[in-house]
Amino acid sequence: MTGIATAALDQLRERLGDAVVTDVDVMAAYAHDEADLVEHGQPGCVVHARSTEDVRHVVRVAGQYGIPVVPQGALTGLAGAANAVDGCIALSLRRMDRILEIDRINRIAVVQPGVINKAVSTAAGELGLRYPPDPGSWESSTIGGNVSTNAGGMCCVKYGVTSEYVLGLEVVLADGEVLRTGRRTAKGVAGYDLTKLFVGSEGTLGVITEITLALRPVSEGVLSLAAVFEDTVSAGAAVSAIVADGRTPSLLEIMDNTLIRAIEAYRPMDLPVDAAALLLAAVDDGSSAQLERIAQLCTAAGASEVHVASDPVEGEMLLAARRLAHPAMERLGKIIVDDIAVPRSALAELLDSTQRIGEKYQVRVAMVGHAGDGNMHPNLIVDRDDPDSHRRCMLAFDAIMQLGLDLGGTCTGEHGVGTLKKGWLATEIGPIGLRTHRAIKAALDPAGILNPGKVFEIPG
Amino acid sequence: MTGIATAALDQLRERLGDAVVTDVDVMAAYAHDEADLVEHGQPGCVVHARSTEDVRHVVRVAGQYGIPVVPQGALTGLAGAANAVDGCIALSLRRMDRILEIDRINRIAVVQPGVINKAVSTAAGELGLRYPPDPGSWESSTIGGNVSTNAGGMCCVKYGVTSEYVLGLEVVLADGEVLRTGRRTAKGVAGYDLTKLFVGSEGTLGVITEITLALRPVSEGVLSLAAVFEDTVSAGAAVSAIVADGRTPSLLEIMDNTLIRAIEAYRPMDLPVDAAALLLAAVDDGSSAQLERIAQLCTAAGASEVHVASDPVEGEMLLAARRLAHPAMERLGKIIVDDIAVPRSALAELLDSTQRIGEKYQVRVAMVGHAGDGNMHPNLIVDRDDPDSHRRCMLAFDAIMQLGLDLGGTCTGEHGVGTLKKGWLATEIGPIGLRTHRAIKAALDPAGILNPGKVFEIPG
Repeated sequence: MTGIATAALDQLRERLGDAVVTDVDVMAAYAHDEADLVEHGQPGCVVHARSTEDVRHVVRVAGQYGIPVVPQGALTGLAGAANAVDGCIALSLRRMDRILEIDRINRIAVVQPGVINKAVSTAAGELGLRYPPDPGSWESSTIGGNVSTNAGGMCCVKYGVTSEYVLGLEVVLADGEVLRTGRRTAKGVAGYDLTKLFVGSEGTLGVITEITLALRPVSEGVLSLAAVFEDTVSAGAAVSAIVADGRTPSLLEIMDNTLIRAIEAYRPMDLPVDAAALLLAAVDDGSSAQLERIAQLCTAAGASEVHVASDPVEGEMLLAARRLAHPAMERLGKIIVDDIAVPRSALAELLDSTQRIGEKYQVRVAMVGHAGDGNMHPNLIVDRDDPDSHRRCMLAFDAIMQLGLDLGGTCTGEHGVGTLKKGWLATEIGPIGLRTHRAIKAALDPAGILNPGKVFEIPG
Repeated sequence: MTGIATAALDQLRERLGDAVVTDVDVMAAYAHDEADLVEHGQPGCVVHARSTEDVRHVVRVAGQYGIPVVPQGALTGLAGAANAVDGCIALSLRRMDRILEIDRINRIAVVQPGVINKAVSTAAGELGLRYPPDPGSWESSTIGGNVSTNAGGMCCVKYGVTSEYVLGLEVVLADGEVLRTGRRTAKGVAGYDLTKLFVGSEGTLGVITEITLALRPVSEGVLSLAAVFEDTVSAGAAVSAIVADGRTPSLLEIMDNTLIRAIEAYRPMDLPVDAAALLLAAVDDGSSAQLERIAQLCTAAGASEVHVASDPVEGEMLLAARRLAHPAMERLGKIIVDDIAVPRSALAELLDSTQRIGEKYQVRVAMVGHAGDGNMHPNLIVDRDDPDSHRRCMLAFDAIMQLGLDLGGTCTGEHGVGTLKKGWLATEIGPIGLRTHRAIKAALDPAGILNPGKVFEIPG
C-alpha cells in the first residue's frame, strides 16, 4: 500500500492544484536517483513546489497526516538520498529554479534550490565571477541537491566542497516554520553554524528553499598536463610529492588502466591504453612555473611521459577525457560507483589494495578520482551475463569500504550517505556519533517526517 | 553564595588533586575574559584539566551536582564567552597544550585545545606549512578558544576564519561521553557536519579536548602597500573597487584618523596623522602586478598618496603599526571593542554613519578593521574622567549594532556572542532561529550545565 489518504491529497490540492501528481507512470520517474542498485519505495504522490509557501503547505499537511516527505532535485545523486519511501510525498524543488540575485561587489548569489549548477556558473561568469563547486553532474544537478549532499567535484583540491560556498539558507522546518540561517557578509560568527548543519544533511532536517552562495573571481588562466605511469604506486607517489612540495593545483585527477581503455573505446582520442595510470593536473593561476614544477615531480616519481598542454584548448581536451569516465564506464556493464576518501599519503596503498580486492572477488574495478584530495571512485562493473556478479560486486564494495576506513579514511568523500552507506556511516562515526545525530534529528524533526531512513536509522 | 558543595569538591579532587583550586585570589583571575565591561560571576572553583579523562571526570561530577561548567582557554576573548557564572567550575584547558602530530603530506595538525595559536603556526612553519587564522591575540590565545569562538584575523579576506581549518574534533559531551567528529581526509561528507556545529558554539554544547586542523603551504612572498585617504568614503570606495576588480589581497585593513593618531602617539613611526583613513593591503602570491593594480585602484578611488613597501621588512613595519591598534587605544581610555560585519559594499556608509553616531552621543569612536571582509571594529573610548561617558558609550554601541544589522550585516564578524551580544543575536536571528538554537542545546545538554547563559538565554 503506497497510497496517500484522499483527505491529505485534497488538502495538498487546495493550494497546489495540478502540481500534485498521482499518475503512476509519472510517479515512477520520481522513485529514485541514479543509485539504482539500492532500495527505493514508491511515492504516494509527487508535488512540484514553486514557492516557499508551497513547501510550507506540503510540510504542514505531511505533518498532520504523518506522511514522509522526500525532497528531490534533479535526481542525479549516487547514494539514494532522494529515493522515495513507500507512500511518501516526493517533493520536487526542481521548478523553484530562479536566480534571485547576483551581487558583484559582495560576490554572492541568492538562488532557489532548483536552479542548475551550470546556470549559476554561467550567470556568475557573465559578471567576471565564478561558482567553483563542479560535481560531475554540474550540467544537470541542482544547487539544492548539491547543497543537500555537500557535493564535491574536480576543483575541490584547491577550492573545497559546496559547504565552503554556502553563506546562508532559507529552510522550511518540520513544523512548517521558516528558518533563515547565515548571512550575506564575508564573515560572521553569530550563534551556532546552522547553515553548515543543514548542508549535507540530505533533506533530513528541513527543506531548503533559498540559498545564498559565495562567489569567487574568475581564475587567471588554466594550464594543464597529463602524466603517464607504468604502475599505480608511482602515480600515488607523484601525488604525495606534489602536495608535499606545497603545490596548489586546481585539479589533480587520476584514472587507472581499465578506465583509460574504457574511455578510449568510447571515444578514441589517442590515450595511452597500456599505461597503468594517467594523472591529470592543472593550475589556474596562470603560473607556468608551477605547472613545470608539477611536471618535474611527476617525472621524478617515475612518470614514463609527461605531456604539457600547449594551450587551453588542448588542456580542455584532456579534461574532456576525464569527464567521459561515467558514460564510458556504463558501456562496460552496470556500474556501482563508490566514493571513499583517504589521507593523501595513503593513495598508493588504496589503489593497490583495491586492485587486489577486485582480483579476490573476480570483479572488474576501474579507478578514477580526485587524487589530490585522496577522494577516489572505484567503479565496480557488474557483468550482466553473470548472475553471480552482482553479489561478488557487493562483497568487493564492502571490502573497499572497510579498506578506506582502515586507511584512516571516510565512507563518502562527496556523494553522501543516502541509503547506500547507512551501515558504513554507523561504523565510521560509532555509537556516540550516531546517538548525537539522532538527538539532533529528534530536536528538529521530532515526528520523523523528513526523508526518513536516510543517512541513519531511527530505532524503534 | 558562590561556593561548591564539599562533596562535589571532594569528588573532583579524587581524580584531580591539586588541579582543583579554591583559593579566592587565584579564582579571581579566572572570573572573566578581556570583555571586562560585561557581567561576570565568581567561580566556585578552578580546575586545570590535563587530559580528556580529566575533562570527563569534571563534566560527570558537574552533571551529578548540577554545577555549571565554564570552559576556558587563555581568557583573551572580547565578548565574555569564558566569563564565570556564580559557583561554576572554571574548567581551564590551558595545560592541555601539546601538539600531538603534524603531518606534512596530509597537511594536518592534531593539537590539544590549550596550545597557543603561535605555537601551531611556528611548528607548521618549520615544515613549510602554515596555519592561516591569525586573530589579534594569536601570540597568546589558545586554539581551543579560537575554535570555540570561530576566531578570525587579518588573513581572513583571503583565507577565511578558523572554521575553514577545523577538520575534526574530540568533544566531551554533557553526559561525559566522548564524541569524535570529522576526519583526517581532505574531503568528507559523511553525516551531519558536527564539527562545524561545535566550532563557534562557545563551550555551550561540549568541551573540546582535541582538534584536527588543516594546514596550508606557506605563501609565496608578501608584498604590501599603504594608501592615504582624505575622506573615509573614498577609502570605502577603494575597497569596493579592489573586490569588484577580482583582486584577492591577503590582507586589506583600514584605520581611521583617531586610530592613526593613537598609534603615532603610542609609538611614533611617521604615520600620516592628518589622513582621514589609511588602507593597508598585501598580496602573498608574490605578484607585484596584483599589488600595482591595487595601488592603481586606490589612486583612482581618490587616495592622496600610495606608498608601496620596497621590501618585506618595510611591509612588516606597516603591519606592525596595525597590530599596535589595541595597546595604542588602551592608552586613550577604557575601550569597548565592537565587532560588526557588513556587506563590503556598505563599508563607506558604515564608516560615515558610525562617525555620526559618535557625534550624536558625544563619544569618541576609533575605527579599525578588516575592510576587505566588511568586518569592522569600532572602538568606543570611555572617558575615565566623565562619569556619564560609559552610559553614552553603551548607547552608541547599541546604535552601531543596529546600524550594522540595518546595513544587512551581522552582530559579530569574529569575536563571538558571549554575554556581550546575546540580545543582539536574538534580534539578528529572530524567534525561529532562537528556537532552533535552544532545541539543539536541549538535545546535547538537556540539564544546561555547559556554559549556561552564553550566546542565548534558556527561558524558564
